[in-house]
Amino acid sequence: MITYFHPGELGHHVRTRLYGGRLVEALETPGRLSALHEAARICTDAVVEPEPADRSIIAEVHDADYLTFLETAFLAWKQRFPDAIELRPSLHPNAYMRRLPDDLLGRAGYYINDAASVLLEDSWEAAIASAASALAAAAAVRDGKPAAYALCRPPGHHAYRDMASGYCFLNNAALAAALARRTAGRVTILDVDVHHGNGTQTLFYDRADIQTISIHADPRTAYPFYAGYADERGIGAGEGYNLNLPVPEWSGDEAYLAAVRTGIQAAAAFSPDLVVLALGLDASGADPLACMRVTGEGFARMGEMLGAIRKPTVIIQEGGYPSPVLGDNLTHFMAGFRASSGA
Amino acid sequence: MITYFHPGELGHHVRTRLYGGRLVEALETPGRLSALHEAARICTDAVVEPEPADRSIIAEVHDADYLTFLETAFLAWKQRFPDAIELRPSLHPNAYMRRLPDDLLGRAGYYINDAASVLLEDSWEAAIASAASALAAAAAVRDGKPAAYALCRPPGHHAYRDMASGYCFLNNAALAAALARRTAGRVTILDVDVHHGNGTQTLFYDRADIQTISIHADPRTAYPFYAGYADERGIGAGEGYNLNLPVPEWSGDEAYLAAVRTGIQAAAAFSPDLVVLALGLDASGADPLACMRVTGEGFARMGEMLGAIRKPTVIIQEGGYPSPVLGDNLTHFMAGFRASSGA
Repeated sequence: MITYFHPGELGHHVRTRLYGGRLVEALETPGRLSALHEAARICTDAVVEPEPADRSIIAEVHDADYLTFLETAFLAWKQRFPDAIELRPSLHPNAYMRRLPDDLLGRAGYYINDAASVLLEDSWEAAIASAASALAAAAAVRDGKPAAYALCRPPGHHAYRDMASGYCFLNNAALAAALARRTAGRVTILDVDVHHGNGTQTLFYDRADIQTISIHADPRTAYPFYAGYADERGIGAGEGYNLNLPVPEWSGDEAYLAAVRTGIQAAAAFSPDLVVLALGLDASGADPLACMRVTGEGFARMGEMLGAIRKPTVIIQEGGYPSPVLGDNLTHFMAGFRASSGA
Repeated sequence: MITYFHPGELGHHVRTRLYGGRLVEALETPGRLSALHEAARICTDAVVEPEPADRSIIAEVHDADYLTFLETAFLAWKQRFPDAIELRPSLHPNAYMRRLPDDLLGRAGYYINDAASVLLEDSWEAAIASAASALAAAAAVRDGKPAAYALCRPPGHHAYRDMASGYCFLNNAALAAALARRTAGRVTILDVDVHHGNGTQTLFYDRADIQTISIHADPRTAYPFYAGYADERGIGAGEGYNLNLPVPEWSGDEAYLAAVRTGIQAAAAFSPDLVVLALGLDASGADPLACMRVTGEGFARMGEMLGAIRKPTVIIQEGGYPSPVLGDNLTHFMAGFRASSGA
């Protein structure tokens, strides 16, 4: 199995995050990549730099004006706030009002859903580098490889068609699915990140050709809080093609893997031509944002279960933050996945 | 004319606001009150402390669980983040997801729409003190006074039924209108604050008995950005009973007063039994958040025009931030209003 990784992902060096009402040190930083890159070098066959991202796929998944905002907003922000180090919105649309204004502050809140998803000078470059890794892995699997791993950063599964959210700007898993869907009839996106894949769910909520399944901490008590509940099943043609499997906070391997097993059964029933696996490693009990207690052994078993699906699989890196076991957990996962899939 | 002012409004000493992506010094502070209180002492007949707020009116306008959140959330926040000085949300519901979670972080973002509307230990006490001033002024007018002035802080017109927004927690103008409506058949809320009264608009958007009119800076370029456009006219029974009169940014007296005149004509056509005037003074060119250039003379003329309506009028203080002319502008306004109304 090849790992795709674009060096542009090393940019977007976020400094701060809003936590407890104050600005504290950021977690979704380039530093995440060193442990993951080192592990990927050992537990996959090679780390390869992808071709630049195919913009036509990005334009298919995301809103054109949103993309322009991501690419240009920081420069305008810097002109308005010369001391600024990060573009961070301070206000947002809500259930009662959602017009798209002209002003930069208003557009920042319109296109960015939270204080965590900040833009810097090179955020756009990092986002399309991350997308390039996802698309290269998807293309490799489309072209016949049994599996490929995209070491993506920034992550993607919280990003919407027209909104950044939860550190995510471009929805890498959705981009991989959209590329795969050009040739594959049915695609399943299976998300095992500890946080619900709210952006991915929304992007395909009314579609029957792309099944979305997410295993995650119960949103009643865990991010993203406002979606990810079991009764969200899809709408219209998509009804029944979205499956949320919330797991109580602080569960361990057994409960989390039981939900993964249920997700795998639902995927098998859908019988996809290709699987996109949104692989967060933040269900680890050692994660700095921990809300679950999956062990290294648990990740190995998870990989084994997912490899046993025996479908062409694009593995997209999502969350997982610096901890002593971040790289090990990727290694454990890959060992299990490769053993059972033969990929 | 009597000014109502509750000393509890001197609490809620906000320290910071998020601006340009960073935390800088707050503007909506108790310091706003000194100039306004001093001016009110001179330009009205007396400053009187109101009775405690009638909770039944507050419960009529606001959601019960939201009120509990305002009253209790800071204590829970402080237990979770012992170093916190302010409860400030970092994430929010959006157009695609809006479930109400159990967790405090999730509820904070659900019930507070932006980073500006922070909660402190005594914010609830300040909010109900501000509401008490509004309700006392409304009661005085209901009981026969031609006019009364509520020196309210925190302000209210951006607050929704279940959401704090733009420094506002309880919608004081809406509370005054709800109290008045118990005896008056028709009430007009006329909002001359430089920012659109988005909370007030939403609260009465489907009602024909309470007309809402807002004169404000064009939301395409000014806060609150996502509402306040001229095509928002009300829905259902309320269609035609909401009037937005956006004025281009940086306009002066003539343009702003022309919009006020249009608003007064619409109010006259509705023929209310009572008027609630949401009086922001932030259309001043000297305001630290300035986006308009109304002069002291402009505020005097605005007062004169509004007094000439000759309807029982509850005047509710909304925005207006510390500047050398903040108190003067209240004095100018009141001189004009009292001269033409005889109140």
